[in-house]
Amino acid sequence: MQVIKYPRPEPWPELLRRPALESAALEQTVKDILANVRTNGDAALRQYALEFDRSVVDEFLVSDSEYLDAESLVPQDLKDAIAAAKANIEKFHAVEKVERRVIETTPGVFCWTKLLPIEKIGLYVPAGSAPLFSTVLMLVIPAKLAGCKEIVLCSPPSANGTIDPVTLYAAKLCGVTSIFKIGGAQAVGAMAFGTESVPSVYKIFGPGNQFVTEAKLQVLRYGIAIDMPAGPSELAVLADETCVPSFVAADLLSQAEHGSDSQVILVSTSQAVIDEVLTEVDRQLESLPRKVLAKTALENSKAIFVDSIETGINLLNEYAPEHLIIATAEAEVVAETVTNAGSVFIGNYSCESAGDYASGTNHTLPTNGAARAYSGVSVTSFMKTITYQRITEEGIRNLGPVIETMAAAEGLDAHKNAVSIRREFIG
Amino acid sequence: MQVIKYPRPEPWPELLRRPALESAALEQTVKDILANVRTNGDAALRQYALEFDRSVVDEFLVSDSEYLDAESLVPQDLKDAIAAAKANIEKFHAVEKVERRVIETTPGVFCWTKLLPIEKIGLYVPAGSAPLFSTVLMLVIPAKLAGCKEIVLCSPPSANGTIDPVTLYAAKLCGVTSIFKIGGAQAVGAMAFGTESVPSVYKIFGPGNQFVTEAKLQVLRYGIAIDMPAGPSELAVLADETCVPSFVAADLLSQAEHGSDSQVILVSTSQAVIDEVLTEVDRQLESLPRKVLAKTALENSKAIFVDSIETGINLLNEYAPEHLIIATAEAEVVAETVTNAGSVFIGNYSCESAGDYASGTNHTLPTNGAARAYSGVSVTSFMKTITYQRITEEGIRNLGPVIETMAAAEGLDAHKNAVSIRREFIG
Repeated sequence: MQVIKYPRPEPWPELLRRPALESAALEQTVKDILANVRTNGDAALRQYALEFDRSVVDEFLVSDSEYLDAESLVPQDLKDAIAAAKANIEKFHAVEKVERRVIETTPGVFCWTKLLPIEKIGLYVPAGSAPLFSTVLMLVIPAKLAGCKEIVLCSPPSANGTIDPVTLYAAKLCGVTSIFKIGGAQAVGAMAFGTESVPSVYKIFGPGNQFVTEAKLQVLRYGIAIDMPAGPSELAVLADETCVPSFVAADLLSQAEHGSDSQVILVSTSQAVIDEVLTEVDRQLESLPRKVLAKTALENSKAIFVDSIETGINLLNEYAPEHLIIATAEAEVVAETVTNAGSVFIGNYSCESAGDYASGTNHTLPTNGAARAYSGVSVTSFMKTITYQRITEEGIRNLGPVIETMAAAEGLDAHKNAVSIRREFIG
Repeated sequence: MQVIKYPRPEPWPELLRRPALESAALEQTVKDILANVRTNGDAALRQYALEFDRSVVDEFLVSDSEYLDAESLVPQDLKDAIAAAKANIEKFHAVEKVERRVIETTPGVFCWTKLLPIEKIGLYVPAGSAPLFSTVLMLVIPAKLAGCKEIVLCSPPSANGTIDPVTLYAAKLCGVTSIFKIGGAQAVGAMAFGTESVPSVYKIFGPGNQFVTEAKLQVLRYGIAIDMPAGPSELAVLADETCVPSFVAADLLSQAEHGSDSQVILVSTSQAVIDEVLTEVDRQLESLPRKVLAKTALENSKAIFVDSIETGINLLNEYAPEHLIIATAEAEVVAETVTNAGSVFIGNYSCESAGDYASGTNHTLPTNGAARAYSGVSVTSFMKTITYQRITEEGIRNLGPVIETMAAAEGLDAHKNAVSIRREFIG
């Protein structure tokens, strides 16, 4: 970890810059994959399964017997843990019924809003180095609470043509409509355009590698919505002398083990804390199975020594981390001053792992500074609003002249006429 | 208008297909513009002002004296109309204060959500064939209600280097922070990357031509959020024999006059209504100043004769129109069955013009079928949520084992260790 002392505000943007991930080659590769899936459907998917997953897939749809096999492979203690996490996630995501609020903006002009589920959604769950069944919980639970009718899930098959059993178990438990053994950019294309096997959906969610992320950005052009542009996972910790350095070290490592491109930042008002945390990081790192990944991630990471908690928060608000742990005195008061972050973990016992799995909050969060403008996934991510208006004769009498004046000033006579013809009719 | 009778469901997707607007050339042009703005800042903006707007711009920022000049140019009746519209839009968009709801998902695990304004936002307001000051109201009012700190607005200068006075007046009235005389893709680039004159923002809103839309899609790659991908404006009307054909015709024309690429669809259970509306359209068209634009739009438009209101609604839900007028018996009951639309106008007196200007609902709505997954602009479009969690010793004791089991099953030992080290510490 690089240690930086008392940075003045001027170099903050430079100091906090994430590695850029631009690539024209990636863009073209994904464009070709999407075009192929759009034109050739299942045949293209079969070709890529062989090429990228080294898997011969006859039937993309996971069958009932595959579910049953999967269920028998999941140990009971893991089933119990998943049930406990599911209960917490459901509790947190449950939406209170909001009464329809009709607003009479002008006498005779009634306006209101209705929140409705997005009918068809698609979820991508990566496999790769570790199966991420927790992502299934984090996406399917809010989708079901929102009332989505059709929930399609794609996950890459292993070389023997199967999907991780825990992923299948969690998907069935939470209520996915259908699961397909398809990975990568081609899975995003299949859900965006539809193929012989895969139905098309209206919005696509879920993490993935750079091909998946690029494909999500490209299908936006075809009217498909996406949850958010995802980047490598990030954790920032703000710590003072009240923190427990071994906890902070464990948290930094839990982020670093995600991948060599993970971003980890420690901000502290205490040089002693920084020293102790770094020593602890080295010590704990030795016993980790994913040591190599974590080590590379830590090389890109920074420990920043600041003169006050306030400076630390200003710097972190500019960085807008995905996860932010506040391990300081009066952590809850400090948390109130956060303006840009995906999720905030308050106090020494609030480790990021809790939010990743089971505390109840969603772990699909904005990365790469997107927390400045994006929210994490919630039930409303699976819904959209429609506005309504009902205008009476009285309403058009009262409001008509205002509309006519404005339409005329914009040079839109037909807009004006739509009001005038009604006013004349009423007489 | 093309008249189609009793279409069976199979050809609906074909029948309802919008014209595709793909262009590799457009994509490359915009890519070059954005790269130039990113590298050369104000110099690039000056070059494009000359090239595209035929305008020599020394100072992009609109000065106080320009505001004063603009104000004196806006007639009092228009000022009054704008004030009335502003009051209605504020009433509809006002957000009720929601009490913080802390959820204890497991004893000792406290989770909650906070809604915060996006600090810096950018608005694009096109000029072109008609000045669209109503867009200023529809974007700035919710941004102010959300609490955005910095509201930057860009609008293209005319050849004499000025901006439409009503746009300036409305912007000042509603509380824009700063206005810049910049148009097109280069304006989007300026707000995304920042230049010597223009501050960078976190989210960009507003309509525009295909260059602006393409630029908004491209800046997504740089972590900038956008309101939605915008396309040509659309109106669908569902009418039965209780409608007033001259009203329906006026509404269809008000949409058609937006531009030759506007989409207009009439769905009716009555052949007589279709005939009368089409006759009225021809009659009213003659007196419209924007007759040529409207005529071209109508050529791409369709009148569809269906066997029942239910079939009509099914078809329209699949089309997902930006605006939907329901001019039928029991219009409010029919409106309850709408699942995909931007905004719904109920009954004979609810013309689209009302929502465009002054009823209070927002006129920035999803087009091109995006209403299946996107919402129109609201105060929450200018905000993002942060989730929080505070876990006590008791909380980690209760929930710790669940997290450990799940982390171990995902092969993420450092995630597990972040909990284990805390459980051991508590003893």
